[in-house]
Amino acid sequence: MPTKIAILGGGAMATACAILLNEHQDQQVSMWLRSADLAREITETRENKRLLPGVQIPQEIEVTGDIEQAVADAEFLVVAIPSAFLRSSLDQLAPALNSNRPTISVVKGLEPETHQRPSEIITDVLGTRSVIAVGGPSHAEEIARRLPATVVAASGDLSLAKRVQNMFATDRFRVYANVDLIGVEVAGAVKNVIAIAAGICDGLGFGDNAKSALMTRGIVEMSRFGAHFGAEESTFSGLAGIGDLITTCISPYGRNRLVGRRLGEGETLSQILESMDAVAEGVKTTQAVMEISDQNDIDMPISQEIYRVLFEEKSPFEATQTLMNRPYKIE
Amino acid sequence: MPTKIAILGGGAMATACAILLNEHQDQQVSMWLRSADLAREITETRENKRLLPGVQIPQEIEVTGDIEQAVADAEFLVVAIPSAFLRSSLDQLAPALNSNRPTISVVKGLEPETHQRPSEIITDVLGTRSVIAVGGPSHAEEIARRLPATVVAASGDLSLAKRVQNMFATDRFRVYANVDLIGVEVAGAVKNVIAIAAGICDGLGFGDNAKSALMTRGIVEMSRFGAHFGAEESTFSGLAGIGDLITTCISPYGRNRLVGRRLGEGETLSQILESMDAVAEGVKTTQAVMEISDQNDIDMPISQEIYRVLFEEKSPFEATQTLMNRPYKIE
Repeated sequence: MPTKIAILGGGAMATACAILLNEHQDQQVSMWLRSADLAREITETRENKRLLPGVQIPQEIEVTGDIEQAVADAEFLVVAIPSAFLRSSLDQLAPALNSNRPTISVVKGLEPETHQRPSEIITDVLGTRSVIAVGGPSHAEEIARRLPATVVAASGDLSLAKRVQNMFATDRFRVYANVDLIGVEVAGAVKNVIAIAAGICDGLGFGDNAKSALMTRGIVEMSRFGAHFGAEESTFSGLAGIGDLITTCISPYGRNRLVGRRLGEGETLSQILESMDAVAEGVKTTQAVMEISDQNDIDMPISQEIYRVLFEEKSPFEATQTLMNRPYKIE
Repeated sequence: MPTKIAILGGGAMATACAILLNEHQDQQVSMWLRSADLAREITETRENKRLLPGVQIPQEIEVTGDIEQAVADAEFLVVAIPSAFLRSSLDQLAPALNSNRPTISVVKGLEPETHQRPSEIITDVLGTRSVIAVGGPSHAEEIARRLPATVVAASGDLSLAKRVQNMFATDRFRVYANVDLIGVEVAGAVKNVIAIAAGICDGLGFGDNAKSALMTRGIVEMSRFGAHFGAEESTFSGLAGIGDLITTCISPYGRNRLVGRRLGEGETLSQILESMDAVAEGVKTTQAVMEISDQNDIDMPISQEIYRVLFEEKSPFEATQTLMNRPYKIE
């Protein structure tokens, strides 16, 4: 009997996971989509025309709007729902979900009200204690188009992380096992704040020196923030830390970077958000990060400036000047 | 009396340093160029047409082919000569250079025969013990065009590093002082090897996920190599480490990345080197890195594959497959 894995979500990352997991002969994959219409369309056309045009979704992957059908006999869940809708979606689905299934999260973000990480929300709503976070440089569009990538699968239970490592790994998708679930989730959330800053650098025409320096100082800030939650410093110098940060800051696919770039070019946040149909996780995460760092006295100079640009109408150029003109330091 | 600083070299980095140092009212800058003809041309036109077209070199900067004139009354030297010509150039200039001058090195590389770092070569030839290395994400073209950047000035003598910090810092050029001279120099050399690998990723069309993962694993390898020389691990997660690596791997100006890209696209090393008029430091550095790591049993998987591609005709695609298919690991 193949191992059945049910994916909750129909976005680019959900589809990329489905394609990877389906490449293992001993695994069977189902995808649950909120929209039954879209599920039917994908089942017929084998393509998600809006999010992944040209990517063929293999016949063997079951695509359905029926949650009971999607999770029937599934041994694992993969949660690929944007963090803004995570709790409300899981609340709705909970009656159909067995709480004993190990659950893999590819969700990035921090809940503004509770400051919870995705795995905490999953445990909170579903009761599942076995949560594995997958992180690292993994733009879904590239994975779905079968380009190589390397990520980490993190869980407090290393044997579970290794199980997930084997479920996902292919000859072009390399997976490292890691025990720092907290670090992987914190890094995955806060990198989107730094990506907005990187986008601002691009929008202001600052060049690669400035952007690389920003990423370098950004990872220091991310690591400091993670330490407050008990994350390992080494996670931030690894794939889920600097690795994911680099991709998020340089990839043409990055929505958070795009928000920053348009801010740097002079648009306001409301203009930008009105015109985007996809979610930029970094905007809400900036709010959560500032609340947490204010309450706990964590020094987050870049995040603070991004907060001021996003929510207090500080000009992006002024924000960069504030960062450049801090007192001289020893590295 | 202003502090006089003499720059040895006439390339893009030498010019970028001259422009920065000249912005301080209390400093006077001279540049020595090997070619007296080019020195005369720049003195007249105030432009280095070949290397930095459109960048105006301020009138106050003295540009000369006469070494005696360049270094007369200079309190500091800045050495900005490609590492391949460093020893031979300094040997020639030594009679004119006072060995007691603190010397700032922006040279990146390791000498193939001796495995010496630039500061060691400078001490060897000039007798100078006070050497400060400046490193970090600092593509000269961007600095010369007055875009913002952030770097480190490193010396075993922190007070000297701080002096250099003050000499270079402007409102768009931020300098951190650092005591890990060895780490800054090792990082500056080995990053060019990883940049060749990043270029190969680009040439093969692998995308940003793969390239970011490569940089992340590359910095681990660079740090391991540095530890052998007594470098601090923290330097590799800082501006001179991951910061410079990112710029070198993403900037359109990077010569080492370009060598890799053309290898990835199918050209041979000799074809590429014949057609380039600038120096790609990474090719010689790969040789030195492999010799050192072989002799000292340092695990350098990426550098090893780059060595095989450069000098043993291994196909770039095969090399990436070797890296992707190493046994599963814990990060």
